[in-house]
Amino acid sequence: MENIQVKLASRPFGNPKESDFSIEKTPLPSIQDGEVLIKTAYISLDPAMRGWMNEGKSYIAPVKIGDVFRAGTAGEVVASKNENFVVGQKVTGNWGVQQFGVSKGKDIIKVDTSFAPLPMYLATLGMPGMTAYFGLLETGLPKEGDTLVVSGASGAVGSVVGQIAKIKGCRVIGIAGDQEKCDYCVNELGFDACINYKTENVRKALKEACPEGIDIYFDNVGGEILDIVLTQIRFKARIVICGAISQYNNTEPVKGPSNYLSLLVNRARMEGIVVFDNAANYGKAAKEMAGWLNEGKLKSKIHIEQGIENFYPSLMMLFSGKNFGKLVLEVA
Amino acid sequence: MENIQVKLASRPFGNPKESDFSIEKTPLPSIQDGEVLIKTAYISLDPAMRGWMNEGKSYIAPVKIGDVFRAGTAGEVVASKNENFVVGQKVTGNWGVQQFGVSKGKDIIKVDTSFAPLPMYLATLGMPGMTAYFGLLETGLPKEGDTLVVSGASGAVGSVVGQIAKIKGCRVIGIAGDQEKCDYCVNELGFDACINYKTENVRKALKEACPEGIDIYFDNVGGEILDIVLTQIRFKARIVICGAISQYNNTEPVKGPSNYLSLLVNRARMEGIVVFDNAANYGKAAKEMAGWLNEGKLKSKIHIEQGIENFYPSLMMLFSGKNFGKLVLEVA
Repeated sequence: MENIQVKLASRPFGNPKESDFSIEKTPLPSIQDGEVLIKTAYISLDPAMRGWMNEGKSYIAPVKIGDVFRAGTAGEVVASKNENFVVGQKVTGNWGVQQFGVSKGKDIIKVDTSFAPLPMYLATLGMPGMTAYFGLLETGLPKEGDTLVVSGASGAVGSVVGQIAKIKGCRVIGIAGDQEKCDYCVNELGFDACINYKTENVRKALKEACPEGIDIYFDNVGGEILDIVLTQIRFKARIVICGAISQYNNTEPVKGPSNYLSLLVNRARMEGIVVFDNAANYGKAAKEMAGWLNEGKLKSKIHIEQGIENFYPSLMMLFSGKNFGKLVLEVA
Repeated sequence: MENIQVKLASRPFGNPKESDFSIEKTPLPSIQDGEVLIKTAYISLDPAMRGWMNEGKSYIAPVKIGDVFRAGTAGEVVASKNENFVVGQKVTGNWGVQQFGVSKGKDIIKVDTSFAPLPMYLATLGMPGMTAYFGLLETGLPKEGDTLVVSGASGAVGSVVGQIAKIKGCRVIGIAGDQEKCDYCVNELGFDACINYKTENVRKALKEACPEGIDIYFDNVGGEILDIVLTQIRFKARIVICGAISQYNNTEPVKGPSNYLSLLVNRARMEGIVVFDNAANYGKAAKEMAGWLNEGKLKSKIHIEQGIENFYPSLMMLFSGKNFGKLVLEVA
């Protein structure tokens, strides 16, 4: 038997190209005492992956050229020399874009698929959900009656942010890139409004949707939308910088927010978050979100693409906005 | 007798012009029951004044065309129909750029010139000192051992920020626009280093002065320096946005900080401040700073220009960096 691995072949400049990745067949790894062999079922595709392709300091080391590309993963233990894991156990981890992974057990987490289907542990019960939960509650600091705006509204993080904000009594306005996504946010997720930035005048639409201004902006996209939001924030507003997908494939310098002095005028705050900082509290968050999922207060949409060989075109859907919901790759 | 008043004649585009102000002679105002007449001794000249010339929403209403231009002021009561103020009492307030002001007493504060000379109440014991005190302590959140960088380092706000940071056990690096100012920061105020941004490579000099990165940046200037600092902040850094004097006379849009995603990478925060929010606690702050002044831990340099008719050229010194220390205009 063999393993199929997707490796980083070169560092992209601007949009990643197919040739920046290589698909390689390698021997199935053998496991040592204390290790488990995991067969990958789902690979998480996330905007953050674009950052990991770049050289240079970030919140996490870049993937090295020639290494299996980093990814959140979910699968099943198929061989075990570790007494804590039996064959058949479903687990999540970060063993990367490959058909089989090996772990010593410390960097994988057992999951219960009788409670939620496996890909959900890469979505609302995984990193995107944790990002939303901690980013909103600990940095966004929502209060009842606050107006919250979230970009990437129907996405893996944005959809959870908006729904938790509703649970906390906020008025929630989404921003998304097509009408179907906007309708989903309003009709299925209970957002108060959702702006289609491709067809609407965002400045005007935000003003109409947030006549008293914006208390919290949870930013997944950066660029022009961040700059527009800055002109409409309220006193003591909180802007959570979670990502800037509009800027990740730039070949020119990132567009900084020209209206940042609105932070001064409004005594507002812009703060960056990285989910890993909350690792110690993932369990508590997962438990609370599982409760909300059970009560139907939290809905989750998962977009599944097929086949590890489709890693590249599937990943690129994130940057064109073609995915609808949390994007995962199912490995046959 | 008459009053000389400087009024806003038109809203500047870019650099203010002399013709944007008019100097008018008007009758000396008469006072009603409950009012006092104050003879102006000193007028505070501050970068914030540039913002007050612009139309549009800010943290404070713009000065209307034809109105006496807003300014912090210090002077002496010369006539009183208010039982709380006797003739001869020294007071500070905001009665604007004029020789005489009238007050009902609620918007002026009695000051004790046996403790500190009158202009000091427009400097370290006035708005600039309060801005530094609250901006640093409540938003910068200095901890012993932190590395703090402050721009406009020898200025009315920056010099106090740096000195309080030293009192709190920080390593302090200033950035200023000439060598005399830099030398003053290091030799007189006790800063650990000061970078002359006009002659040094700021990126390189900062890296040398802050080899482990920057915990707190207190920004008075914005522009390129803010962008450079963003590349050198540490985990959980705090950037206090106090002003952006490099951008105030722009005729093009403000340059936003292109490196703002460093906030994400470093889980850092950028937050705007306006001193007025702390009005309820000015007394407590003044008391603590007065103590530091007495102990020689806090030094203050005041740059005095002469004559209300020189309001315009004196104000413009702020934007060319020609003043050295807190700039005030002495009214004969």
